[in-house]
Amino acid sequence: MTPILLHEDRLFPTDKTTRNIARQLYESVRNMPIISPHGHTDPRWFAQNNAFTNATELLITPDHYVFRMLYSQGVSLEALGIARIDGGPTEQDPKKAWQVFADHYYLFAATPSRLWLDTVFHDVFGLTDMLCSGNALDYYEHITAQLATPAFKPRALMDRFNIELIATTEGALDPLSQHAALKESGWDKRVITTFRPDDVIDASRTDFATNIIRLGELTGEDTTCWKGYLNALRQRRSVFRAHGATATDHGHPTAATANLSVRECEVLFAKVIGPDAQPSDHALFRAQMLTEMAGMSVEDGMVMQLHPGCYRSHNTQLFSQFGSDKGHDIPVATNYVDALHPLLSRYGNEPNLQIILFTLDETTYARELAPLAGHYPCLKLGPAWWFHDSPEGMLRFRQQVTETAGFYNTVGFNDDTRAFLSIPARHDVARRMDCRFLAQLVAEHRLSQSEATTIAEQLTYHLAKKAYKLD
Amino acid sequence: MTPILLHEDRLFPTDKTTRNIARQLYESVRNMPIISPHGHTDPRWFAQNNAFTNATELLITPDHYVFRMLYSQGVSLEALGIARIDGGPTEQDPKKAWQVFADHYYLFAATPSRLWLDTVFHDVFGLTDMLCSGNALDYYEHITAQLATPAFKPRALMDRFNIELIATTEGALDPLSQHAALKESGWDKRVITTFRPDDVIDASRTDFATNIIRLGELTGEDTTCWKGYLNALRQRRSVFRAHGATATDHGHPTAATANLSVRECEVLFAKVIGPDAQPSDHALFRAQMLTEMAGMSVEDGMVMQLHPGCYRSHNTQLFSQFGSDKGHDIPVATNYVDALHPLLSRYGNEPNLQIILFTLDETTYARELAPLAGHYPCLKLGPAWWFHDSPEGMLRFRQQVTETAGFYNTVGFNDDTRAFLSIPARHDVARRMDCRFLAQLVAEHRLSQSEATTIAEQLTYHLAKKAYKLD
Amino acid sequence: MTPILLHEDRLFPTDKTTRNIARQLYESVRNMPIISPHGHTDPRWFAQNNAFTNATELLITPDHYVFRMLYSQGVSLEALGIARIDGGPTEQDPKKAWQVFADHYYLFAATPSRLWLDTVFHDVFGLTDMLCSGNALDYYEHITAQLATPAFKPRALMDRFNIELIATTEGALDPLSQHAALKESGWDKRVITTFRPDDVIDASRTDFATNIIRLGELTGEDTTCWKGYLNALRQRRSVFRAHGATATDHGHPTAATANLSVRECEVLFAKVIGPDAQPSDHALFRAQMLTEMAGMSVEDGMVMQLHPGCYRSHNTQLFSQFGSDKGHDIPVATNYVDALHPLLSRYGNEPNLQIILFTLDETTYARELAPLAGHYPCLKLGPAWWFHDSPEGMLRFRQQVTETAGFYNTVGFNDDTRAFLSIPARHDVARRMDCRFLAQLVAEHRLSQSEATTIAEQLTYHLAKKAYKLD
Repeated sequence: MTPILLHEDRLFPTDKTTRNIARQLYESVRNMPIISPHGHTDPRWFAQNNAFTNATELLITPDHYVFRMLYSQGVSLEALGIARIDGGPTEQDPKKAWQVFADHYYLFAATPSRLWLDTVFHDVFGLTDMLCSGNALDYYEHITAQLATPAFKPRALMDRFNIELIATTEGALDPLSQHAALKESGWDKRVITTFRPDDVIDASRTDFATNIIRLGELTGEDTTCWKGYLNALRQRRSVFRAHGATATDHGHPTAATANLSVRECEVLFAKVIGPDAQPSDHALFRAQMLTEMAGMSVEDGMVMQLHPGCYRSHNTQLFSQFGSDKGHDIPVATNYVDALHPLLSRYGNEPNLQIILFTLDETTYARELAPLAGHYPCLKLGPAWWFHDSPEGMLRFRQQVTETAGFYNTVGFNDDTRAFLSIPARHDVARRMDCRFLAQLVAEHRLSQSEATTIAEQLTYHLAKKAYKLD
Repeated sequence: MTPILLHEDRLFPTDKTTRNIARQLYESVRNMPIISPHGHTDPRWFAQNNAFTNATELLITPDHYVFRMLYSQGVSLEALGIARIDGGPTEQDPKKAWQVFADHYYLFAATPSRLWLDTVFHDVFGLTDMLCSGNALDYYEHITAQLATPAFKPRALMDRFNIELIATTEGALDPLSQHAALKESGWDKRVITTFRPDDVIDASRTDFATNIIRLGELTGEDTTCWKGYLNALRQRRSVFRAHGATATDHGHPTAATANLSVRECEVLFAKVIGPDAQPSDHALFRAQMLTEMAGMSVEDGMVMQLHPGCYRSHNTQLFSQFGSDKGHDIPVATNYVDALHPLLSRYGNEPNLQIILFTLDETTYARELAPLAGHYPCLKLGPAWWFHDSPEGMLRFRQQVTETAGFYNTVGFNDDTRAFLSIPARHDVARRMDCRFLAQLVAEHRLSQSEATTIAEQLTYHLAKKAYKLD
Repeated sequence: MTPILLHEDRLFPTDKTTRNIARQLYESVRNMPIISPHGHTDPRWFAQNNAFTNATELLITPDHYVFRMLYSQGVSLEALGIARIDGGPTEQDPKKAWQVFADHYYLFAATPSRLWLDTVFHDVFGLTDMLCSGNALDYYEHITAQLATPAFKPRALMDRFNIELIATTEGALDPLSQHAALKESGWDKRVITTFRPDDVIDASRTDFATNIIRLGELTGEDTTCWKGYLNALRQRRSVFRAHGATATDHGHPTAATANLSVRECEVLFAKVIGPDAQPSDHALFRAQMLTEMAGMSVEDGMVMQLHPGCYRSHNTQLFSQFGSDKGHDIPVATNYVDALHPLLSRYGNEPNLQIILFTLDETTYARELAPLAGHYPCLKLGPAWWFHDSPEGMLRFRQQVTETAGFYNTVGFNDDTRAFLSIPARHDVARRMDCRFLAQLVAEHRLSQSEATTIAEQLTYHLAKKAYKLD
């Protein structure tokens, strides 16, 4: 077998009959537009449409999937040019950082990063040899030169990538100036925001008190009292909706929810904005606020996304040097059944409520999430997430979820990425794996091929639009 | 590939060699009699042998697998004609409910319910087109008309389905009048009962005090004291055995057991039948009672089944409207190793004890259950259960259990259903999946085909008879 | 398919293309030397090189994988000739024990023990029929006769098995006299020891106080104080290194670590060597000692192995009759993320530290271990361990770990066995399964075959040498 960078049949089943079915299913969805309803690209890119600078700053520096793997094998973050927050020196030459990356490219064998990067190299930049130490600088120059051309500006890539809609994620206090600029340019239907209020809900943050004051200033509400705080959140949700948002996002450590009385909430709020709150108060407040957010979603129709179960910034030393999102967030065991009960007891049967659940704990797929989503009309399951956004992870998701929740209680694919160029690659992997899963069902005579085609189209496009109310 | 309702090779591996082996193995077991040692059919059916009424009341209304999926997609239980316990109105026309079901039949793609229903439609009623909105009423009429004929009466179906033995499940206070009638009719070897004492063991139930009084009345024992209570249970076990029971069944929230002294038991019992018992007392009492039940099994030889790990009736609002068993029981993480230790310390090496363990937490297959069953002579593993009674679930069970516990520490298949017509379909899926698993082992040269044939016959028939002492 | 004892293609994928790739990959690694960096063989065998006695004492009596399965099906340990520590009678005739084993050999169908034993029978002893009741005594005589010949002495088998290096495991107080003898014979590069200090670290052991006194005597340190105790451990580590050790091994119930101040350590140590220590003190002391061991590894470069998560000797009655390691150690749910945080906060970024993590809780592969090893430079993942050292277990390991940690954060295979003759069989299974996993990736066009060949060689040989610092 001659090694080639990107084989047309990659990820398909090896059995010939099944592979043929997978190919046919894939043909029906490969060119459908991309809906990217949850991610972390920078709205500035689309608002200002400036050229990207160079290969390193585009593909390595912002991608914690990439540099965590190199760090695990003894490469320092400094050598990759990752900025230090403590002012320490780092590599300033992007070519040298690229060379270090290329020297260690073999580490990514069989990882999703390798699949995504190879697809970017091949499909976006037309490269055909595998990246290695020897061709590293040629790669760098080739990519960097292309980035300077008009065809590689963000909006041109949006068209080339066939991205119909992309959602960014902004904190509750974000001025949304980039989205305002997008509105003026007429791109506001294509790039929308998402309301992420963790900064004004998680009272354990060191900037929480400041954030609450700022929330009051932004909205004119008295955020020193519970009622004013809730009204301020309602206002911000409304402003986000005016900038296209159809969804909120919540990155809590656990899925815990609470269902306190108004009086209890008032007392708890007073405590968490004061100096004496304990970790248990912070936890209870986060829990209650998920229920409050669900209540506001019943009012205003915003889709609620819950992303729990991560121990953030586990490496204390690295966090103090480089800050957050540096590849050492580690998943933990997560409970949904008891945790969501208070919220669901209050709002679980509301027809206007839609909550999309994600998990980093795959043991919950078959045990908790599929049974919950297979019953509650307000619950849907987000795709295999983060560490599990891999071919194997996607198979495990479908294999463990479908039997109980079916396909229609899932919401299509999320790329969840800040790596803009990898978005088509990520959606392509998801489409291939869904077609593979469906082809297996057809080959085992559990589904007709016409049903499988319909479902493939749903998983690729329609379910995302419906789940995120993008129609 | 022309879509057909039921392909002869469904669920078999796609690789040709392996599929051929699977076919051959399946041929050797497909017509073996059905042993159904654990389930929830109504003994009245077999005792009175009346015709079933119509398609909706037979196939939808009692099947929480079916209506929970529809509910998850916004269909109300009222629209399906599910009876409300609060007296609210529900659909009275079974044809309309059937039409709603057919309109949403696509939701079941790739679920076990779809497999079972298609098999019932095809094999029992001779239907060949897939159910859809357009043919819904034809389906309804066809099925309902057939049900009125003698060939579709319960006992005729028992013969047609080749069910050698079926066990129902009755509460400790059940008068067993249907089983008495079966005895008179000579069907008592074919339809037996199972002793399920949760109603007189779970002191957290609102009817517990009443049940204990009733237990005293039924048995003539003084159930206000520990010793009398135990003797009453012994008596009921004896009555159940006289109605064919070879097994008990215990549906506890956890697998916790305890090993208290007689004096501690007396004090605890006095507390739980009184007004001041706390949830922790109820939990400890349930735990102790599992050990007591094991002790009685050592005395009387009844096989003990433990079905732990479910959060019952999670949707508070729906529970208040429709009662229990309405599709919102949700599995939770379950521990067996610490939980069973008290019981096993006392009775774990008793030659006359047989305990069959089930789980809704698949993480325990390889970690806890296979190592436990691969050592303790009294422990055997029940098949993939409930949410995991699916093709994928069965594969996961065999793949994770066999390496440590082998085949002979498992007990064959349980259908665990109240959906009588689906029993052959469910056993057929299990037979196909076991043959598939074995065929894979043969094709990978890990097992000879003659060994695989012997094992397939064991898994289909002999192990169930042995484990449940039905020989 | 004619049944044969050992097929050349066993364990390979059934799809023809993929099987051919697997064969080719396997050809490149099948004859590479065996590195066995973690195991439990008896150093006396290699030091004294005496012939093994008979089939039963070599293959059954020491193998708890074998006798736990027989025990689970009602065979008593006495009937197998397992020695009782309470002086009770056991079978003294090894032929009778062998016959019992052969009578139940069918129980092992599809288990790893069956694979290993068949490979031993076929490859080591030249047997070609499957063991059964009928040929049991022929088998026994054939094996026992061969064992008496020079070609079957331990050192001859070391050569025949192509074992380049094997590590045994000794407690901290072991005099290492066998390893001293090996040194004199020039075999000290080939058989090395491993430092396992559980006996002087786990204060819950009944012999702990005695062990601490003995540790003082051995080293001349004052082991009644914290500083002297630590120095004594440093001395023993040094002695072990002088006998070839490159690694330590720690068999704690959990992965908990702690990071106390010196003053807190002094107080805690005083408590655990005294009479009033509670279980929580023992647990905290074990946790702190893992961090101390990591600190010493930073000093002396020894590789640290952590084997947590087992409920030892679960069957209380059997333990009192037969002692430990009798097949009733049962895995439990294990947490690594919170548990390792104290240790990693102190030493996680030390370039000289290497910690190899093992687990019996497979749910941690994708959720915790791969993300940890995919970030921390000091963490590597040991292979699928114990109950999971099976074809399916190995596949699950690679399928769940590779996507996040890649191949280079794993350490090759460990046989972890006291069953010396099975070592080549165990490594062969690992090589086949790794080649199968890689072949699948090649066939799915996710990896080139030349990359796969390189990786297969790394997994078979080079990664183990590097991870255990054996170069």
